[in-house]
Amino acid sequence: MNGAKSLVETLLAAGVDTCFANPGTSEMHFVAALDQSPGMKCVLGLQENIVTGMADGYFRLARKPACTLLHCGPGLANGMGNLHNARRARSGIVNIVGDQATYHRPYDAPLTADTAGMARTVSAWVRTSAGTVDLGRDAVEAVRAARTFPGQIATLILPADVSWQEGGVPGEPMDPPLPPAIDGQAVEAAARLLRDRRDVLILLAGHGVLSEAQGFAWRVAHATGAAVMASYVTAHLARGRGRMPLERVPYGMDHAIQALDRYRHIILVGAEPPVGFFGYPGKPSIQYHPETRFHVLARPDQDPVEALRALAQALDAPEVAMPDPGPRPAPGAGTPTPEGLARTLAATMPEHAIVSDESISYGRGFYKFTHAAPAHDWLHLAGGAIGDGMPVATGAALGACRQRRVINLQADGSAMYSLQSLWTQAREALPVTTIILNNRKYNILIGEYASVGATPGETAMSMLDLGNPSLDWVRLAHGMGVDAAQATTLERCADLMKSSFGRQAPFLIELMV
Amino acid sequence: MNGAKSLVETLLAAGVDTCFANPGTSEMHFVAALDQSPGMKCVLGLQENIVTGMADGYFRLARKPACTLLHCGPGLANGMGNLHNARRARSGIVNIVGDQATYHRPYDAPLTADTAGMARTVSAWVRTSAGTVDLGRDAVEAVRAARTFPGQIATLILPADVSWQEGGVPGEPMDPPLPPAIDGQAVEAAARLLRDRRDVLILLAGHGVLSEAQGFAWRVAHATGAAVMASYVTAHLARGRGRMPLERVPYGMDHAIQALDRYRHIILVGAEPPVGFFGYPGKPSIQYHPETRFHVLARPDQDPVEALRALAQALDAPEVAMPDPGPRPAPGAGTPTPEGLARTLAATMPEHAIVSDESISYGRGFYKFTHAAPAHDWLHLAGGAIGDGMPVATGAALGACRQRRVINLQADGSAMYSLQSLWTQAREALPVTTIILNNRKYNILIGEYASVGATPGETAMSMLDLGNPSLDWVRLAHGMGVDAAQATTLERCADLMKSSFGRQAPFLIELMV
Repeated sequence: MNGAKSLVETLLAAGVDTCFANPGTSEMHFVAALDQSPGMKCVLGLQENIVTGMADGYFRLARKPACTLLHCGPGLANGMGNLHNARRARSGIVNIVGDQATYHRPYDAPLTADTAGMARTVSAWVRTSAGTVDLGRDAVEAVRAARTFPGQIATLILPADVSWQEGGVPGEPMDPPLPPAIDGQAVEAAARLLRDRRDVLILLAGHGVLSEAQGFAWRVAHATGAAVMASYVTAHLARGRGRMPLERVPYGMDHAIQALDRYRHIILVGAEPPVGFFGYPGKPSIQYHPETRFHVLARPDQDPVEALRALAQALDAPEVAMPDPGPRPAPGAGTPTPEGLARTLAATMPEHAIVSDESISYGRGFYKFTHAAPAHDWLHLAGGAIGDGMPVATGAALGACRQRRVINLQADGSAMYSLQSLWTQAREALPVTTIILNNRKYNILIGEYASVGATPGETAMSMLDLGNPSLDWVRLAHGMGVDAAQATTLERCADLMKSSFGRQAPFLIELMV
Repeated sequence: MNGAKSLVETLLAAGVDTCFANPGTSEMHFVAALDQSPGMKCVLGLQENIVTGMADGYFRLARKPACTLLHCGPGLANGMGNLHNARRARSGIVNIVGDQATYHRPYDAPLTADTAGMARTVSAWVRTSAGTVDLGRDAVEAVRAARTFPGQIATLILPADVSWQEGGVPGEPMDPPLPPAIDGQAVEAAARLLRDRRDVLILLAGHGVLSEAQGFAWRVAHATGAAVMASYVTAHLARGRGRMPLERVPYGMDHAIQALDRYRHIILVGAEPPVGFFGYPGKPSIQYHPETRFHVLARPDQDPVEALRALAQALDAPEVAMPDPGPRPAPGAGTPTPEGLARTLAATMPEHAIVSDESISYGRGFYKFTHAAPAHDWLHLAGGAIGDGMPVATGAALGACRQRRVINLQADGSAMYSLQSLWTQAREALPVTTIILNNRKYNILIGEYASVGATPGETAMSMLDLGNPSLDWVRLAHGMGVDAAQATTLERCADLMKSSFGRQAPFLIELMV
């Protein structure tokens, strides 16, 4: 068999059965091999940042990597923004990047680029497959790297001749390495700390904010009175009824510093010490009190469930029911406000919904009003590179086998980065409801500009304002085959949300805010 | 003054007065400085690949660099596809990439990335400005690098604190280095060759295919009988009445080999030896006859006008009028065909139009039928990374000071890579007519798949077909504030083209092909 067929068979045997793709000429043998070896679900994205963002969203729900299929260095480059986000989300992805044939590369044809150099900036593992006979084994290692807990970006560069030549050998799947074991002494030290002191915060990230870990964290908190928060840099939280009413460390420096001020000890479970998204003149980089001491219970590459279970056991913390978040809120009414939209969301969302949140400035307070919603998953932009909300929503719908409603809370400026996602949602008939928060500006930047100490002048506003001309999201959605409607009140928004939740199809609501 | 103000003043003094931007938090002091130091025209793009593509199109017409303003590593990454294309087009661009404050970088906040590593993959010059006092001088060197003949990508990484701290010193503009002089012995050798032999091709690229160089090339060809062609990898050709009826080396391997077969000597003027875009099984990498000898008259970094003038003088080649391309063709009629569309274009285009051609497979034969059009400029995708046609059209309209009509011949698959360009066209009221060649598939790939030796099966077609759902380009344009209409016949297309040419505004024609 040729290299391409050995690669497809290796991927399928290793459990990689979904391929997000935007192929080009150098990938045609791989595309042909997909016809010959059935079993790979292929999903086309109309720009590579959609492709990589979908792979990220898929991983977060499926908890196993998909592969991407990208065309040469520039195709990889187009998808690097969301690979950056996926890296920060610690998602596992196997990128297959087709490239010039090995013997053709020295001729420096137009699409030749420093593909490996590009890949290294966003990948934990990079290899250019050097020969057809090695390709299956290379693919095994790529999948193993992507599956290394909790997930990594692995990029396999595939020269066209390595793909088309005969002599391919499918590789035997290998298990990923086990996460390094939790340090028993760290568990004991954390238990002592929690018994002795009342100024301790347990800071969770990664799998530490999913259901199972929350159960142990809540037992520990209940038994010791410790505070528990989620890191701001969190890609995926389990939320709603039956889960902890977790809040994240706030985004804004002043709010974050205030929220963390009283803790002199922070136990890190998959989290890093909290720092500002950016440095600001006259403000510190760190958000914690300068005298804070950190205690690492689990590094990001260790299993937080094991760590929190051990801690609960060390403390003899009894089983305890999750706190009751109170009654489900009534939907908001009238002119849209962040709180009103959050209440509407909590009031209407179906059981086990998935929220893909790229609401940026508008959504900072959504959590407070959605704790009493039915159990749901909430996905965040962990890497800060805008443009992941829509493709992550798209991929998450596929990662959840189209069985759960995805609600994409989407700022308009970020939406324009990856609006092509709507087309894939229509093509795959995915259960995604997109709510565009149309405020016609880069509102976060107008806030950031204020911190420079001035009101934006004409030149500055020309770079912060999206209102000239206004974007018409209903038309944009219709242009890509997605049904859509506008809402100017929360009642109308609620009606549209509820009717959309019954469809096995995407729907877009343009909410004028 | 702070660093940002010194940077803006340095750029303005060096003649960089246009900024294509998509800023973020770390660029707010630069944005504020633009308000304080007037003179910079700022143009917002809604995704960074639009920003960088516009800067490329601007340079091709203005023949001086613009700057871009990009946000951290991922913002740069989003724009790297079109920076790759601009690098292959040898366009000059000064990228300003705002980044984490120097002291904040070690904290590895979410948007922290290997910005310099990313920049190196597409730039001829990269520097991270280390201190406010150095920033003005760094900017001078960046502009000098970008202006180095014929043009280069220069990337200046600007840590936020270097931007906001006081102590900025505007830099004194420096002239770029002169292109290395033409080698007189190479001119003599080329002249001898042209006198002695009848199997000589002069292959032009870069400025060698613009008007002035063509005048000398035509004198040489007329005096010696030499053939003249343009390299396929050509970003910008002067075409139409009063210019040479140049053809490019064909894209397809077999056609290219056939076209070059009879030449045993190729004189390179800004061009590289012609090679395939890709390697293919059983085909050579080179497109020229294996016995061909190359003679470098001008390297890409040398002035082809000087080289061709010297050659014409060495040959005593007399002044001669450009060949008459014959009568202007009548417009095409009925069902759209490539030839019919080319005739319609030649029949209707206004004087000094600019064609931005990302027609991919549909446009391979456009040249033959447009030699007799009025004088115009034709812009190509030189780097092969699809998605540059629309932003290059947008930037070219600005580079030509909105005084010339831009006609964007645009394949649908590539258009979806950078459709956000339409919004900037509407915002800036740019005279751009976009013709979407809507064939609802990645047609070039269906052709490439055939060369694998099979018809695409269901899985393969799922990655090559754009028809499910169909994209509605009229709605997409309306959604971004651009007026638009559909045409299913060439008569209707001609009517829409003609009426659009009278507007000081963009217009989009969705041509069903």
